[in-house]
Amino acid sequence: MKLIHGGDVAGYEAEYGAKPLDFSANINPLGLPQGVRQAVIGALDSADAYPDPLCRKLRQAIARQEGLPMEQILCGNGAADLIFRLVLALRPKKALVTAPTFAEYEQALALVGCQVQRHMLLEKDDFQLMDRFLQQLHPGLDMVFLCNPNNPTGQVIRPALLDEIGERCGKMGIRLVVDECFQSFLDQPDRHTMKGKLEKDPMLFLLRAFTKFYAMAGIRLGYGLCADTQLLEQMAQCGQPWGVSSLAQAAGIAALQEKEYAQKTRVLIAKERGWLRQALAEQKQRVVGGKANYLFFQTDTPELGQKMRRCGVMIRCCGNYPGLDDSWYRVAVRSHPENLRLIEALKQARSM
Amino acid sequence: MKLIHGGDVAGYEAEYGAKPLDFSANINPLGLPQGVRQAVIGALDSADAYPDPLCRKLRQAIARQEGLPMEQILCGNGAADLIFRLVLALRPKKALVTAPTFAEYEQALALVGCQVQRHMLLEKDDFQLMDRFLQQLHPGLDMVFLCNPNNPTGQVIRPALLDEIGERCGKMGIRLVVDECFQSFLDQPDRHTMKGKLEKDPMLFLLRAFTKFYAMAGIRLGYGLCADTQLLEQMAQCGQPWGVSSLAQAAGIAALQEKEYAQKTRVLIAKERGWLRQALAEQKQRVVGGKANYLFFQTDTPELGQKMRRCGVMIRCCGNYPGLDDSWYRVAVRSHPENLRLIEALKQARSM
Repeated sequence: MKLIHGGDVAGYEAEYGAKPLDFSANINPLGLPQGVRQAVIGALDSADAYPDPLCRKLRQAIARQEGLPMEQILCGNGAADLIFRLVLALRPKKALVTAPTFAEYEQALALVGCQVQRHMLLEKDDFQLMDRFLQQLHPGLDMVFLCNPNNPTGQVIRPALLDEIGERCGKMGIRLVVDECFQSFLDQPDRHTMKGKLEKDPMLFLLRAFTKFYAMAGIRLGYGLCADTQLLEQMAQCGQPWGVSSLAQAAGIAALQEKEYAQKTRVLIAKERGWLRQALAEQKQRVVGGKANYLFFQTDTPELGQKMRRCGVMIRCCGNYPGLDDSWYRVAVRSHPENLRLIEALKQARSM
Repeated sequence: MKLIHGGDVAGYEAEYGAKPLDFSANINPLGLPQGVRQAVIGALDSADAYPDPLCRKLRQAIARQEGLPMEQILCGNGAADLIFRLVLALRPKKALVTAPTFAEYEQALALVGCQVQRHMLLEKDDFQLMDRFLQQLHPGLDMVFLCNPNNPTGQVIRPALLDEIGERCGKMGIRLVVDECFQSFLDQPDRHTMKGKLEKDPMLFLLRAFTKFYAMAGIRLGYGLCADTQLLEQMAQCGQPWGVSSLAQAAGIAALQEKEYAQKTRVLIAKERGWLRQALAEQKQRVVGGKANYLFFQTDTPELGQKMRRCGVMIRCCGNYPGLDDSWYRVAVRSHPENLRLIEALKQARSM
């Protein structure tokens, strides 16, 4: 199995016999909240039993948080699980994705033999989604995937453009999937979420994750929001009933209580993102986008990723994204001491 | 979403506001081993990171335990995850399953539009698989699912018959999937596993679970064994790369160390299975099969399941299995005090 994503800490440890400083996965640097940790430990007392297939308590908690009926919520074993279930439930024949973006959309679409059209985001536009995307929408499409903020660029879609895309997709009968997994890291998430459109647009599907914002990627938890409850029902049938572990369900309920953690996260990320952007620029790296908890840049140092590994730091080489080459990298925004170590390693790597 | 399996403790709690005694899921009554509990707590320290998609350490541990190369092992988010991945990878057109058996085989096959032929196990044979099954095998089949011991009956397949089935499937190019998830609960598992045939028969696929034997159904972990490593590779692509949480990976590694727990389990189940069989018979229940950690019986008490619920005990009504009606039930074999409570509740329910 070829590993195409960041975050392969186990691979690094196998190669170097030591723990890396991992900037290749975009995880909240504050780590697992204490409340979540305690909730998982508490859930071990009933971990002998099967998890609730309907995730009743968790969906109730999410419903309260989101202000949506729980029938419009489906939980998954990470957001990635929901991408596959969604594609298996809908079996689209023609789909449109942007590039570069998160690879799992295309991988899921390939599983059902879907013909995938790639809309290339251009370097000259700083990889932003532009109005010309509207011309790509036509009634022959079954599905469109958008990632907002986009991974790996960290660019957000202009709200007015996104609204226009949503309206056209609704009219044309195209299922619009907006991956909002990194949205909680934005300065103003409320300006960017399409949640307010769900009720009147059953063709809209939103993806959310606990894994990144609550630093629980190893526990796995994501959810989907959609007013088309029949679709959610079909998705539940497209895989096993016990996909979400009872530990993840307990973790999710506890995470939603972590208001102070969430606030601290937003303050930290906003501050460190600015600092790191500046520091990367001072090291002659060309930073583009980067509105979320990761920065995207182009380097003129050959084999930067390999050199950084030798310095104990993992960063995400973006050469395997369609539309990018090995000069593009993505790094997470982490705590200040970690970001300092990143920059030190970068200096060292550049002189290798 | 219609719940078709046992173990819906959350549903019981929502209805009765109290915890049931759950005999409807077949879980080791010794509960989560202490070593597994500690391993999960330890794994929380790195639960912010993504799980190893390749489950390297866990597969190494399983390989040592099974005496097989780690390349022939694929881990999943419970065995049920692997059933879906297997079917998605192979996309069989025609498959043969027995009935009654575990429902997920057919559910997964339905997902790829497979034509499913059901071989009915007959009451007159005590629902055992008989030699006439051999006549159902023909080269037009792509896949056969067998559950050994079978769920819900607890019947095992005669080893000579199973060997003959394996040989014929190999010759006819039929993928034979043998679900061995409850095999560790048998008195002589070594007599029943097909593990020894894997090396020379790449068409053979074995399913195993940690969830039942190590009482970690809420944590989720299963694995598949197959000498066709290309198939395992394809299965890995048929879903997200991070299906197995890092908590489950740590739990599995620790579980394999639990030799004393395993031994205690076998002694307890063997003893209590005999006791419970006798006690059910004394209550005029017709017990059939039952070689694993659950017993299968027919009752003449109408609505027995509902009545038992009112007595605080969940048992598995088998009326939704093809080939069975509401007079058939399955109960787990649990600890002696729990089994006593089951029998007390049964007496009470019979007098309602």
